[in-house]
Amino acid sequence: MNTFTRCCALNRTKFHRTVLNRQFQTTTRRLLELTSVRYPNVKRGNYGIVKDSDVSEFERLIPGRVLTDSLEGYNIDWLKTCRGASQVVLRPKSTEEVSAILKYCNERKLAVVPQGGNTGLVGGSVPVFDEIVISTQLMNKIISLDETSGTLVCQAGCVLATVEDYLSNYKLTIPVDLGAKGSCHIGGNVATNAGGIRLLRYGSLHGNVLGLEAVLASGEVVDCLSTLRKDNTGYDLKQLFVGSEGTLGIITAVSLNCPQKPQAVSVAFLGCESFQTVLDIFKESRHQLGEVLSAFEFMDTQSMTVAKDNLRLNSPITDFPFYVLIETSGSIGKHDEEKLNQFLENVMSSGLVQDGTVATEPTKIQNIWSLRERLAEGLLHDGYCYKYDVSLPLPSFYDLVEAMRERLGTMVTRVVGYGHVGDGNLHLNMTSPEYSTEVMAKIEPYLYDWVADKKGSISAEHGLGFKKRDFIYHSKSKSAVVLMKEIKKTFDPNMILNPYKVLPDF
Amino acid sequence: MNTFTRCCALNRTKFHRTVLNRQFQTTTRRLLELTSVRYPNVKRGNYGIVKDSDVSEFERLIPGRVLTDSLEGYNIDWLKTCRGASQVVLRPKSTEEVSAILKYCNERKLAVVPQGGNTGLVGGSVPVFDEIVISTQLMNKIISLDETSGTLVCQAGCVLATVEDYLSNYKLTIPVDLGAKGSCHIGGNVATNAGGIRLLRYGSLHGNVLGLEAVLASGEVVDCLSTLRKDNTGYDLKQLFVGSEGTLGIITAVSLNCPQKPQAVSVAFLGCESFQTVLDIFKESRHQLGEVLSAFEFMDTQSMTVAKDNLRLNSPITDFPFYVLIETSGSIGKHDEEKLNQFLENVMSSGLVQDGTVATEPTKIQNIWSLRERLAEGLLHDGYCYKYDVSLPLPSFYDLVEAMRERLGTMVTRVVGYGHVGDGNLHLNMTSPEYSTEVMAKIEPYLYDWVADKKGSISAEHGLGFKKRDFIYHSKSKSAVVLMKEIKKTFDPNMILNPYKVLPDF
Repeated sequence: MNTFTRCCALNRTKFHRTVLNRQFQTTTRRLLELTSVRYPNVKRGNYGIVKDSDVSEFERLIPGRVLTDSLEGYNIDWLKTCRGASQVVLRPKSTEEVSAILKYCNERKLAVVPQGGNTGLVGGSVPVFDEIVISTQLMNKIISLDETSGTLVCQAGCVLATVEDYLSNYKLTIPVDLGAKGSCHIGGNVATNAGGIRLLRYGSLHGNVLGLEAVLASGEVVDCLSTLRKDNTGYDLKQLFVGSEGTLGIITAVSLNCPQKPQAVSVAFLGCESFQTVLDIFKESRHQLGEVLSAFEFMDTQSMTVAKDNLRLNSPITDFPFYVLIETSGSIGKHDEEKLNQFLENVMSSGLVQDGTVATEPTKIQNIWSLRERLAEGLLHDGYCYKYDVSLPLPSFYDLVEAMRERLGTMVTRVVGYGHVGDGNLHLNMTSPEYSTEVMAKIEPYLYDWVADKKGSISAEHGLGFKKRDFIYHSKSKSAVVLMKEIKKTFDPNMILNPYKVLPDF
Repeated sequence: MNTFTRCCALNRTKFHRTVLNRQFQTTTRRLLELTSVRYPNVKRGNYGIVKDSDVSEFERLIPGRVLTDSLEGYNIDWLKTCRGASQVVLRPKSTEEVSAILKYCNERKLAVVPQGGNTGLVGGSVPVFDEIVISTQLMNKIISLDETSGTLVCQAGCVLATVEDYLSNYKLTIPVDLGAKGSCHIGGNVATNAGGIRLLRYGSLHGNVLGLEAVLASGEVVDCLSTLRKDNTGYDLKQLFVGSEGTLGIITAVSLNCPQKPQAVSVAFLGCESFQTVLDIFKESRHQLGEVLSAFEFMDTQSMTVAKDNLRLNSPITDFPFYVLIETSGSIGKHDEEKLNQFLENVMSSGLVQDGTVATEPTKIQNIWSLRERLAEGLLHDGYCYKYDVSLPLPSFYDLVEAMRERLGTMVTRVVGYGHVGDGNLHLNMTSPEYSTEVMAKIEPYLYDWVADKKGSISAEHGLGFKKRDFIYHSKSKSAVVLMKEIKKTFDPNMILNPYKVLPDF
């Protein structure tokens, strides 16, 4: 299950995975405290307790697919920071089975947690107490593909990379790509509105999910599994399930708009004197590269130091305060290269860029991407890493990194900023030899307040899950949260679906 | 107000508008029956009746912007098929004013209808009885533009074409384009989830609206006016307002993701022997033109007859059963032309296409687009036009036209099909010298049943409004409609917002 390198990088080498897993496993042995112990203020809801008679009923509903032993992998999240105490895992194969299970649980007031690949980073996909895990592992069928329009329909438990491989046979690709693709489920991607590296090009899942099927807590199946690109008949209910993190219903099937697979990829790596220059280059790249621009990433000089010192990687260019990675992809490589070369000539002659390199060969492209992708791994070499994933309006984007650097001074080993400039998504990381409550007290809630003040988002792509739900007011207004709670009550009156997640206590 | 040629064409010539307006005005004199008379089964809700004291209060809230005379333009829809009897039109300038108005109306249980450019085609933007019209005409300020990321924030009453012109100064464009752009408001576009010709390229407004601000019936302002591309903090409430047709709240401001303005446009017009060939060419165009494909439209030979006989237009190619119009747009014209020429060489050498023409000059492009765009106008020359706007999965797309042709036989002058193949959106039109109840009885509900049977949508881009709300079950399941009604009750407990629209009676 734990086979990905970081939240939003391409999953390119097995090597990274192994190193990361080792790091995480080492950490794990210290952190296997039960969530209920670690967060004593969170109280178990007034839910039923699973009895033998319940297990028998589940066994009747899905014979041979009720697990009651060795549930650690289902109780612990990928980051090994949350540990639930579920006694039962159910593995339905069909929507009808999910419906029957939920109908029963709702009548018995048994709380449940839906789980896909369990690759979430905010404790949203594991139980907090003894919630029953409903896993989509066995719901992994591709239902249909319309090659002409590029519309795919599949069950929620299909693994992202499997779907991507399947689509590549038809010269198509999937509009979402993230590091966890080897294990995450498409249903989980939709439930958490996964972002990732292709968002700049293809937009969010709110635009790419054409339809979905979900089962409400009552067992009622909501069939919005449209394959149409246009359908203006009533409220677009499916959008509520996108990003609801399993709290409104269990997504059982998804219909996706799949773009053409690009035939050619080029990458440029540039050095910049200031963050303002990074933004100027971004603006120019949007204008000059237009339809072939597929990624615009940045990293600061502190990030490059991590790459060099902790990972022994070499920079292909001389030292600069900032670096930019630009990827183009399109249907004819020659055209993309011409556009990229012309663009580079322009930004170099206008003085925005002093040094840079371009790659069109896969190995060279991979080497450049490694500098950016392996940073999460490199940071772990420092000891403990305080990780944040925020969205900020571009004019304030890098100010947060500088503010934290000034605030923390020598209390930390380093403060580094990198991320998806193209999506306004900053990955801000601070490291120290080991976890420090003093450092943490300096970071939170200061950092969240700072983001809120700039009208940013405290969770760009990871969601709120269990760990961030109490910070929702930093990014959403009171009136909005009131509406969310009303919607939750409408969809799930007994509140059995993924309790203690997304919304603060009622 | 009535300055557009058809729902989803580019608004290119003044001539069309004049002709169409004349046609509609002629029709109008016969059709100015009150909606309450024409639809006797629709009963007025138990709402308050506007008194002089209410008008005085409105005058206090928005001095000089309360209209009580000459309200015909606000009471009648653009198609001149619905006529309300509102006695008051309110023209707020700010969100605060909208909030104060709604708070008052909600307390008094006065029903309201939000109105943008009043260009809707399903009677959604005009009163059914005596609802108060709240017009966004004076809420027309552009609030901000981040040139780097292409994020625009504006008030709901900005006219689409005005925003497009503004953006073009910054080498940006707006991701939605439709025939009504000279008069429709961006708030109305969002409220109806307007589709149009750019959807194939940029996707729907669900993906392009980054944030919005809306006022609930209670006067509460829901601030979801984010400018971020990524924000996974709680349910994405803004999506509910997109396409809710003013029944959940009044949208007061919108934040949009604006793409780069293309630097070059090319158009190809091709003849095909069968509809299957149209689909084959579509598939090939997606693959070979990839990122520069910006429109894929089709028309049948019956449509071409309308263009030739009723509009005196010439086809640039010989006669075929079907025609395809392909548009490319990108950042470097030379590259797009190379891609298009290579694609055409391939589809001609493979026998998919026997004849075709390509245009890169604006006048030639305009002439080709006219063949497709002026069809709505041309059909009116026949007398009465029964217009339908449906979505269908591509394999069934043209079968509906043939089914209707067979079903209606000589009862009608002609049955023609054209539309956005790229979006699965068919415009199906039947004409007769004058309106015939017999013809109508043959069309409805047969046509809607047919679409439902193929899992299509009975309203691809126009919405349900007043006229189609009772057909919602043809495209949405009962469980989905139950949830929609619950959401409506949560957002608008007194049901004062745009009553008699979108949802069937409770």
